[in-house]
Amino acid sequence: MVKIAVDAMGGDYAPQEIVKGAIQAVTEQGLELALVGPEEPIKREIRKYDTSALSIYVMNTNEVIEEGESPVSALHLKPDASIFAATRMVKDGRADAVVSMGYTGAVMVAAIEILGKLEGIKRPSAGTILCGFAPNTLVFDLGPNADCKPRDLLSFAVMGSVVAQKMFHIDNPTVALLSNGAEERKGNLLVKKAYSLFKESHLNFIGNVEGNNIPQGKANVIICDGFIGNILLKFCEGLGEAVVERLSTAWDKKIPEEQVETMVNDLFTLTHAAEEGGPIYGVNGVVVIGHGRSKAPQVANAIRVAKQAVESNLVEELRSELGKLTKGEIG
Amino acid sequence: MVKIAVDAMGGDYAPQEIVKGAIQAVTEQGLELALVGPEEPIKREIRKYDTSALSIYVMNTNEVIEEGESPVSALHLKPDASIFAATRMVKDGRADAVVSMGYTGAVMVAAIEILGKLEGIKRPSAGTILCGFAPNTLVFDLGPNADCKPRDLLSFAVMGSVVAQKMFHIDNPTVALLSNGAEERKGNLLVKKAYSLFKESHLNFIGNVEGNNIPQGKANVIICDGFIGNILLKFCEGLGEAVVERLSTAWDKKIPEEQVETMVNDLFTLTHAAEEGGPIYGVNGVVVIGHGRSKAPQVANAIRVAKQAVESNLVEELRSELGKLTKGEIG
Repeated sequence: MVKIAVDAMGGDYAPQEIVKGAIQAVTEQGLELALVGPEEPIKREIRKYDTSALSIYVMNTNEVIEEGESPVSALHLKPDASIFAATRMVKDGRADAVVSMGYTGAVMVAAIEILGKLEGIKRPSAGTILCGFAPNTLVFDLGPNADCKPRDLLSFAVMGSVVAQKMFHIDNPTVALLSNGAEERKGNLLVKKAYSLFKESHLNFIGNVEGNNIPQGKANVIICDGFIGNILLKFCEGLGEAVVERLSTAWDKKIPEEQVETMVNDLFTLTHAAEEGGPIYGVNGVVVIGHGRSKAPQVANAIRVAKQAVESNLVEELRSELGKLTKGEIG
Repeated sequence: MVKIAVDAMGGDYAPQEIVKGAIQAVTEQGLELALVGPEEPIKREIRKYDTSALSIYVMNTNEVIEEGESPVSALHLKPDASIFAATRMVKDGRADAVVSMGYTGAVMVAAIEILGKLEGIKRPSAGTILCGFAPNTLVFDLGPNADCKPRDLLSFAVMGSVVAQKMFHIDNPTVALLSNGAEERKGNLLVKKAYSLFKESHLNFIGNVEGNNIPQGKANVIICDGFIGNILLKFCEGLGEAVVERLSTAWDKKIPEEQVETMVNDLFTLTHAAEEGGPIYGVNGVVVIGHGRSKAPQVANAIRVAKQAVESNLVEELRSELGKLTKGEIG
């Protein structure tokens, strides 16, 4: 049975929604789960549910990373903080994966410093479906890497291609650079430099795509730096919320409530595709990071993603694909 | 009467849609208009309409900038290309404004090299309402400046504040930096450096905002580099198109056609707010640049924006506001 360590203290609604989502996941998905964090508040939440038949337990830790604290120094000063303790369980083989809704910076530091990076990877990356209208389009990087070099973008593309194949079952995925025009000469300095690296690589590179090509799904793997990826992800969600509000207000009492609700839910889901979170790719273990605003259903989804990554043997697949690259292609 | 020079050869649908939109504008807005470009194809288009009562004429020029040609060298090799000839009419006082749907790079070169920059401005900028859900929020830069320095962002903010006040009648506009988190320490290197400049400025700076804060209208002037601005603008349009298609398909024959159409038109307009284009701010004259994909209604709108900028005395307002800045605040 897959065993997952969950950072019970990470996220805006921790520990309540984390515990609730974790219990939901164990009930539905058949797995073993450790809730990592201070015992007392976690157990208080668990007691609200009947967990007698579930493989769920608490791994007590007592240090907490404060808002604004540097995650690198926290790792040394507070090694027992929930995200570090949970990640160490993966390192030691006591868990197959770790899931956190906490601050991205701390999760990245935990993943990189405790588990280590895969050979050839300088900067692990996060990416997934940005926009539900294009379910076969992954966007990398979605946050961890705000400032990138051309070779970083290339390594995101290599990882994105493997993920598209192994996790999303897309054969020979097309890869594109997100730019301000389709032509090769378009781009900021970063993208222009990356363009020639991409062209020389073994990737199925189709050139530049523009912002509107994301919801159109013009490529399977679309590459940008994590600063832009983060802004786009949140813009997509915000725009979806604005659309949904407009619909609800305009159609109140004009269209049957049920139909409005169906459409509202559909559009909300489509514009919040990235909400369930995803793995950090390029580290020696499965680390899934979710949205800080996650509530129980999103927490359960993030746990499901972690389970799938373990079952599809993702880390080994990535390691093997990266090993095939010619020396110097990335890194 | 305001006199506007229109680049008849710029844009994906030139000259057909440009001529059509220009005639529409003259008819509705009461202005004088010169269509600049090769006489023969333009006159062929004009003949399709009854223009006998309209102040519209053709200013014949014969050079054409090719796709991919450097606009800087084009200015020297093909000084008679339509965008350059049209801009020269403003310089010489033969027109009050120039409007083009052509390639941004060429329009920028024309504006900067022929008209010159306002004192204190290194990089003229374009910005307008990105998202109709937030009609009191302007985003700068929306394209011309892909790679920026912190001081460039500050000058966009200064211009954006003036534009918000003078063109959009917003008192004491709030200004924010677009970032990957609200906290001061968030951002890529560019935004982090800009943050301290903004804090020290006379602007009504409220800190960082995130992607979802754009449709929420959390600030009146939101600042990013033109690479991100361009991607966001097109992403907004693409997402709007995807939403509209989803609605139309899901509701075909389920909801009265009229109601679907009203909602579709509303959502399309709200997600295509930037489509009408806007002025390039920071040059010695009114230059309005529109979307390459503009059809006649958008062309007419761009002409309306140019007329408004002339009538509100925008260039002088900007010059006067920039003159008030302390030496060294920007530039």
